[in-house]
Amino acid sequence: MYALSWSLQNVVFQNSKDTLILLYVKPPHAIYTPLDATGRIDDPETPGYLFSSDISAAIEKYSQEVADCVLEKSKKLCKDLQNVKVETRVESGDPRDVICEMSQKLGAHLLIMGSHGYGVVKRAFLGSVSNYCSQNVKCPVLIVKKPKPSAGIY
Amino acid sequence: MYALSWSLQNVVFQNSKDTLILLYVKPPHAIYTPLDATGRIDDPETPGYLFSSDISAAIEKYSQEVADCVLEKSKKLCKDLQNVKVETRVESGDPRDVICEMSQKLGAHLLIMGSHGYGVVKRAFLGSVSNYCSQNVKCPVLIVKKPKPSAGIY
Repeated sequence: MYALSWSLQNVVFQNSKDTLILLYVKPPHAIYTPLDATGRIDDPETPGYLFSSDISAAIEKYSQEVADCVLEKSKKLCKDLQNVKVETRVESGDPRDVICEMSQKLGAHLLIMGSHGYGVVKRAFLGSVSNYCSQNVKCPVLIVKKPKPSAGIY
Repeated sequence: MYALSWSLQNVVFQNSKDTLILLYVKPPHAIYTPLDATGRIDDPETPGYLFSSDISAAIEKYSQEVADCVLEKSKKLCKDLQNVKVETRVESGDPRDVICEMSQKLGAHLLIMGSHGYGVVKRAFLGSVSNYCSQNVKCPVLIVKKPKPSAGIY
């Protein structure tokens, strides 16, 4: 939200005929499957397909609701700050791959990304999506990190 | 030059009262010293101070001339593309540190960087200045990579 807000105020200009595509990447479906693949409680030998698909459906529903909520909030921000043409996309998968693929597929002229600003240790475990994308995407990349007033020199 | 040109056409707008600061970072002085620190040819026991300072001065002069030339070319580009207020700075040191320090010191609202777009191997040896800066600088960072029509998918 900070990256979007900053970009609307500084980079995306009204009447510029730019189209702003809001891309939301949901976690890949595959990561839900192992959660309950051990079987039904009443019969551990039988794989719990019914249970599994129930949970998968519930998580998928929740995931979609989060996506819708975030995109609605983002669209409202766009409308409030700049009367820019907005499109939305929801995709699933590893955000690094999806963002690179979609930037290419949609012919983006500029990729704008927020950044968590993790420290060295956390970044080593979680990786940096913005780093990966800035190295692998062809178009220019704008990385907007939320300022932390309490942080050190950098 | 590509990053500057792209930014002038897409991000830095005429009459926006933005000041564009062109920062040129020369290699640190220290790396010249070992070149001829072994001594004079006619007397290897005596450190070749005269020779050394001559070479250092010549390299320093050359380095300054390159900086002046690049900045002149950049200023001309700014004038041709946008009538934006331009300032120039020349600093010495590790570009990663200098860029982060100067962004902070000058209170930059946006750091714009070019990127060589090295592959995985070359990047492992040379490091990525843009990666380092995007992680360590507080303000938003725009990385503009020169497009390569002959490159792969990304």
